[in-house]
Amino acid sequence: MRASLDGGMADRVSSAAVTAQCREIFRAWGMTTEHARVTAERLEYADLHGVDSHGIALLPLYARLRAENRINFRPEPRLLRDTPVIALIDADGGLGQIAGTRATLLAIEKARAVGLAAVAVRNSNHFGAAGAYAMLGAEAGLLGMAFSAAWDAAIVPTHGAEARFGTNPLAFAAPAGEEPPFCFDVATSTVAIGKLRLAELHGRPLESGWALDGSGAVTTDPKAALASRLLTPLGGTPQLSSHKGYGLAALVEILSTMLSGASYCVSRDREKPALDVGHFFMAIDPSAFRADGGFEADVAGMMGVLRETRPARAGQPVIAPGDPEARAFADRSVNGIPLPQTLVKQVREIAADCKAAWLL
Amino acid sequence: MRASLDGGMADRVSSAAVTAQCREIFRAWGMTTEHARVTAERLEYADLHGVDSHGIALLPLYARLRAENRINFRPEPRLLRDTPVIALIDADGGLGQIAGTRATLLAIEKARAVGLAAVAVRNSNHFGAAGAYAMLGAEAGLLGMAFSAAWDAAIVPTHGAEARFGTNPLAFAAPAGEEPPFCFDVATSTVAIGKLRLAELHGRPLESGWALDGSGAVTTDPKAALASRLLTPLGGTPQLSSHKGYGLAALVEILSTMLSGASYCVSRDREKPALDVGHFFMAIDPSAFRADGGFEADVAGMMGVLRETRPARAGQPVIAPGDPEARAFADRSVNGIPLPQTLVKQVREIAADCKAAWLL
Repeated sequence: MRASLDGGMADRVSSAAVTAQCREIFRAWGMTTEHARVTAERLEYADLHGVDSHGIALLPLYARLRAENRINFRPEPRLLRDTPVIALIDADGGLGQIAGTRATLLAIEKARAVGLAAVAVRNSNHFGAAGAYAMLGAEAGLLGMAFSAAWDAAIVPTHGAEARFGTNPLAFAAPAGEEPPFCFDVATSTVAIGKLRLAELHGRPLESGWALDGSGAVTTDPKAALASRLLTPLGGTPQLSSHKGYGLAALVEILSTMLSGASYCVSRDREKPALDVGHFFMAIDPSAFRADGGFEADVAGMMGVLRETRPARAGQPVIAPGDPEARAFADRSVNGIPLPQTLVKQVREIAADCKAAWLL
Repeated sequence: MRASLDGGMADRVSSAAVTAQCREIFRAWGMTTEHARVTAERLEYADLHGVDSHGIALLPLYARLRAENRINFRPEPRLLRDTPVIALIDADGGLGQIAGTRATLLAIEKARAVGLAAVAVRNSNHFGAAGAYAMLGAEAGLLGMAFSAAWDAAIVPTHGAEARFGTNPLAFAAPAGEEPPFCFDVATSTVAIGKLRLAELHGRPLESGWALDGSGAVTTDPKAALASRLLTPLGGTPQLSSHKGYGLAALVEILSTMLSGASYCVSRDREKPALDVGHFFMAIDPSAFRADGGFEADVAGMMGVLRETRPARAGQPVIAPGDPEARAFADRSVNGIPLPQTLVKQVREIAADCKAAWLL
């Protein structure tokens, strides 16, 4: 048992048990066996790779969306367009992991055949960690990319006082041969809402540049920031080039929403229960570009150079993108997933509520 | 005449004259008529759209690279790979505008046929403004994307004290129907070196988070920052999530360098004069994904929503990505390009040195 991020104590539970628990609950919520398996697998990626906010910890959010009738648990995703290079999928209102996984696997299959492919998804929902999809590409020996919009706006454009984008994540992963893959998986906000909650919990002020109060002014008060839910785009302030994070959030929105024909969060029809979230997935086969097969070694070489960068402070080495994920995986695949007691209690209530077996 | 950004006075000169002057100098440097035309056109984009650092103002840099024998002015770019979906071009050491334009037009042609295409370029050089290539896509009714590495490292990984990436720009443009296109064109550093020079010129301190001194500590002293040439990745500090800008710079490096087989700037063979810069270009046809043709109207709609965002301060409205470029174009295509006298003097010396006609 160890102290977890939220201050409570955490037990280690095998990822097999965590994933089986998620599957049980998804089944009890009405998913097919196959959909429950796929959805739990995408959460397992996050738990195994240290993305604690996007694994089993998503169940309370999904339970709330279920209570609000926001999720179709028996979706029949439809392939609306399908060419050798692109595809478009209607997710039929199901959780994004279902259509997102299908879209990613389809992009991988196409990219293997023609070098490059993209699949857009509309009428979807929360899809978990963007990195889970990008890493499917890297595991297949390809560059994987994933983008998603969201249904609730949180990111405020530079100079604004209203949210205009979700946290609009993007992820990118690339194989590095025998080394763990390059992996980059981020929201386009400066920080996630979770960081504001953590500061409130610990009674600490926010970093200046993380969030805004209701008037659009920078605030360091976690209560004011959690009340307004106004996050800055990456960059934080106009002086530190928040227009770049703003543009990135918009880029993710265009790829996820406008290309697929999903709903832009600000303009979404709020009368309808469906959240109509859009995603965008891409895969690139490096061997299509380079006959010499040197891509993976070059990526690994760059990551090595990055790790050997002289650090600004002794004891705080430079890490390569993907290192935290690889370290968490090495630890957790052996020692299990640390589950805070508060989360276990929440999941226990969810399982009891839907009469799912208790496996943790 | 008006005060220009660098503090000197600026005259307005028609873009036709500015572009003709660039062409004359490129011809005098040995370029073919066609290569001189194409290269000058990419600079013209920057001058017309307000990207002052990447138009005719690049001539002094190019003259220095020429003096160092870094540029092949008679390149014969070769198409090393060419499929319906991807291509790879060897730029033969020429300025990046030549192979970059060919790569972009090839990506556009392929994307029109199959929906999505990408072209990688290696053995290239400085290519000007990334936005010039992305906007060629938007003008053709497609989403255009451009990425480039650089030969000199400037961006320092989070927690590091050494530069590991160039300013690694990325650009993305999307058509918005009758409205000016969405355009996003940024370096993945927090700011460009030019902002440090400007602060020094005006005797102002830097914003904390723009740059580091030689030990890797944040500095607000422009002299220290210009001596070390250590720029932060977007985000600025670890507290404001500079690991996200770091990951973006690495993503641009992987797409530009590792996919094309160009040289990673840190590992480049410094004995060779060729800089071996890599670029990556992509085009996406929105009509391949959406039968309803609603993409452009949805992008225009989102940009309208963004502009109508309630501002944090009266008098400082929210703008949409692409608005500054569109405004500069509306002004400069009629009233000409503002050229600082110091720049005109530099270009005059360059023209005299290579015996190019003087047209400004």
